[in-house]
Amino acid sequence: MLAKKLGERIKELRKKTGLSQEKFALKINMDRTYFATVEMGKRNVSLQNIEKIAKGLDVTISELFDGIEGESDD
Amino acid sequence: MLAKKLGERIKELRKKTGLSQEKFALKINMDRTYFATVEMGKRNVSLQNIEKIAKGLDVTISELFDGIEGESDD
Repeated sequence: MLAKKLGERIKELRKKTGLSQEKFALKINMDRTYFATVEMGKRNVSLQNIEKIAKGLDVTISELFDGIEGESDD
Repeated sequence: MLAKKLGERIKELRKKTGLSQEKFALKINMDRTYFATVEMGKRNVSLQNIEKIAKGLDVTISELFDGIEGESDD
């Protein structure tokens, strides 16, 4: 499921920044609880929030999705 | 603005399929009026709908966004 893979990808990249969920959410001005559910793959996240997260991670949206698609899943 | 660029990109790829807005929306089981506003860049489209559209266009989400980011704008 895509939301789950995206959440895992975001978590992986967020960890590379060295920031906790809370500090990353603060940095990008997103509710911490909301951001936590994104990482858990429980959100049908919108374009604007995808953009916000990608910017905070310093990657393009294309880079964010690259590598999580095409894997056979389900 | 990203939604506008994404809409233009979707329109460009949708035209390559040879399908009208209406036929493409039908194909991916999306409301035609909703899809039209996505192409106009007027929607903060969700992950699930981005995925649906990308699949209908036969591209990955990464490919969908590739090329519309990084252009300096605004």
